[in-house]
Amino acid sequence: MSDDGLHFLVNVTGAGYHRAAWLDPDVPPGSFIDVGYYQGVAETAERGLFDALLLPDIPQQNAGIATGPTQSLEPTLLCTALAVTTERVGFIPTLSTSFNRPYNLARRVLSLDHASNGRGGWNVVTTAAPGAAANFGQEVLPREDRYRRAAEFVDLANRLWDGWEDGALVGDQQSGEFADPAKIHPAAHHGEFFDVEGPLNVPRSPQGRPVIVQAGASDPGIRFAATHAEVVYGAQLSLPGAAEFAREVRAIAAAHGRDGDQIRFLPALVPVVAPTEQEAAERWEHLQSRLPPGPTEAARLEAALWLAPGILGGDVDSPLAPEIFTHSQIPHEGFPRAAARFAAETGYSAREFARHIAGGHRLVIGSTQQVADHIEEWWRAGAVDGFTIAPPALAHDLQSFVDLVVPELQRRGIYRDRYPGRTLRANLGLPVPANPFAALVDTAK
Amino acid sequence: MSDDGLHFLVNVTGAGYHRAAWLDPDVPPGSFIDVGYYQGVAETAERGLFDALLLPDIPQQNAGIATGPTQSLEPTLLCTALAVTTERVGFIPTLSTSFNRPYNLARRVLSLDHASNGRGGWNVVTTAAPGAAANFGQEVLPREDRYRRAAEFVDLANRLWDGWEDGALVGDQQSGEFADPAKIHPAAHHGEFFDVEGPLNVPRSPQGRPVIVQAGASDPGIRFAATHAEVVYGAQLSLPGAAEFAREVRAIAAAHGRDGDQIRFLPALVPVVAPTEQEAAERWEHLQSRLPPGPTEAARLEAALWLAPGILGGDVDSPLAPEIFTHSQIPHEGFPRAAARFAAETGYSAREFARHIAGGHRLVIGSTQQVADHIEEWWRAGAVDGFTIAPPALAHDLQSFVDLVVPELQRRGIYRDRYPGRTLRANLGLPVPANPFAALVDTAK
Repeated sequence: MSDDGLHFLVNVTGAGYHRAAWLDPDVPPGSFIDVGYYQGVAETAERGLFDALLLPDIPQQNAGIATGPTQSLEPTLLCTALAVTTERVGFIPTLSTSFNRPYNLARRVLSLDHASNGRGGWNVVTTAAPGAAANFGQEVLPREDRYRRAAEFVDLANRLWDGWEDGALVGDQQSGEFADPAKIHPAAHHGEFFDVEGPLNVPRSPQGRPVIVQAGASDPGIRFAATHAEVVYGAQLSLPGAAEFAREVRAIAAAHGRDGDQIRFLPALVPVVAPTEQEAAERWEHLQSRLPPGPTEAARLEAALWLAPGILGGDVDSPLAPEIFTHSQIPHEGFPRAAARFAAETGYSAREFARHIAGGHRLVIGSTQQVADHIEEWWRAGAVDGFTIAPPALAHDLQSFVDLVVPELQRRGIYRDRYPGRTLRANLGLPVPANPFAALVDTAK
Repeated sequence: MSDDGLHFLVNVTGAGYHRAAWLDPDVPPGSFIDVGYYQGVAETAERGLFDALLLPDIPQQNAGIATGPTQSLEPTLLCTALAVTTERVGFIPTLSTSFNRPYNLARRVLSLDHASNGRGGWNVVTTAAPGAAANFGQEVLPREDRYRRAAEFVDLANRLWDGWEDGALVGDQQSGEFADPAKIHPAAHHGEFFDVEGPLNVPRSPQGRPVIVQAGASDPGIRFAATHAEVVYGAQLSLPGAAEFAREVRAIAAAHGRDGDQIRFLPALVPVVAPTEQEAAERWEHLQSRLPPGPTEAARLEAALWLAPGILGGDVDSPLAPEIFTHSQIPHEGFPRAAARFAAETGYSAREFARHIAGGHRLVIGSTQQVADHIEEWWRAGAVDGFTIAPPALAHDLQSFVDLVVPELQRRGIYRDRYPGRTLRANLGLPVPANPFAALVDTAK
């Protein structure tokens, strides 16, 4: 629990987290490639004093396009377009360590950080999709290799971002000295996966460095989060599970010499909120009713919960056996473990489960008070620093959250009433990292 | 000569084309990483009805940073930031075919094209700098290989950009059909340099495809321009040279089945313009006086003209021998040939030469009338469709050009008084390319 109150990101993808969100006549189908649509979302998030927009991404056209929008515009560009029409909210594009080159990626993220005056971050993913790999003439590496590559990539990006010491940019119009090359350091990196000389041709960020964000889902993902991430947002379905996860990550961080309290835990939350419980339930039914009908209720629930077809045997009301959630079936690294735990904790049937889980994340359907209660309970228990809000319909449900839940949390004294700073790092309450190159120079004196 | 009148691009780099431009106290040294500064430039270009901003780039911190700003913010991001605050002017980032992956590059340029509603282009460069290659763990390929890779890269980018047929995006909120996967075509490319399956996860551009731009400088560069480029902007120092170059490129284009009249020739021009000839000369002297003093006038001229040190032997007033401009000395692919020709045509001394050439491009110092005369003469001769203006001090000299030369060209009836269209292609007078995937489908019917 951060002592500066709650923090929120918003998950920004297409028409929203719910597959039927694009069927809303208020949202033109072309919105998914319309910068103006995303500008409206960014303004709402900023009105709600959110820390940042998180943009999921995969460099692949997936088959889901037949029935709804998928990720399209390249996220560092889209974030830049939004950065210039906002002042305080941050931007976290998702970029794969498997299909990018470190110099180019580090330069783009640092450029976003400058274009936003210090509001940039990077959601680090390793991308296991064969269809994405085929767009780069590659095979998907084994998971351990992907994360080893990711660790080298992020270490290298940090080193590139640190290349310009404070004071490197001189800008003396009298003497004609623009920069001091002795204070611009090459990365001189020669590793297992990359050889990058550097330096980057972009000065250091106004916030020191872009913020590193990661899901922390699989086992190597959790280690990676503990050693590299400053914000962790992966799936957490229950309060005890979230609390244990945070303890685990903080312990690994401490074992690596990091201060675990300087990691923000913002697991995803799908809120369906309205002034009353009844209206919220109707809102959810409205969205669900627009999904294509499945052959049977059991088949629909199997699909919604990523369960093997036929596994429910038509029985949607008996408690779910935790072991039916298996990694081999489910296209989400953190979900199987969290779902098995949630099944064991709750004894929920498939029908009940599907009222609390949507697309692998915790779903909360309720009144303003009920959604605020859920958030406050998890935060007061020290399990989270806040949430990554995944609105079912991006524009509509983000607006409901900002109009209803945000003022309620402010009344309760657990959410800020203005931005504390001008950078993403300042708003998250994260420290500005020291520049190791500067330290080297000081030691040498 | 295009019958729709003159076209202009503006070369946007740091404080401007002149190394001393950043010493102007009106331009803060931090402008080179300030989006707001570039927004001002884009607004001026749009006021002047320019076709586009052209952003040179190299993924490398070069040593020139000691004495002035170099390229810094990643150009597709910077262009996107400028696209959302403008309505008609286009954006042409420079991106290297040696240090990018086709799927990522094609996606970014097409994203820029959507973010600007069809005002995007790509300045294709192959990048021969070893310092850039070292940032990617690579060696510089031989020139022929670089251009063969570039040709495969651009063909592949075009194919990726064409992936979504017209009609692929259905967006029927009644039926729930969002897109027709049968109309979204993979690139299925397996070539000498790349294996890319596709399709891109971005619909086709509002202008059909981003515009391909290239310098057309070296011999393979000229072939590449003739076979792939829609805008050619390389160095041309004299009218006969420019006319011969355009004829040569158009002939090669025709031999490859292209309509050479659909290539726009916009060679670079460095204008120093003021209401009177005297004021323009003073403006140039003012800029030149701020360059660091060299040991001798001959050494200064040798440096300015990229000549081997000592080659003038102190003699700055005798006609230059054309053969002293050699490729081995000069860091610019097209300049040696154009400079040798210009020396032969003019018989200029080094001193005179340096009043007509700046940084490898044609320099024109003069009154509004004189600069307009130069532009009109080249255009009426059919040697060019316009120019890529490289303002010595970007903000100041672009503004002078737009305030002085643009109205004069309009008075002469050879420059438009409003934008003819909303896309870069429409403004350049270039056709919307047919989509070969759509043609395949039609043939199959």
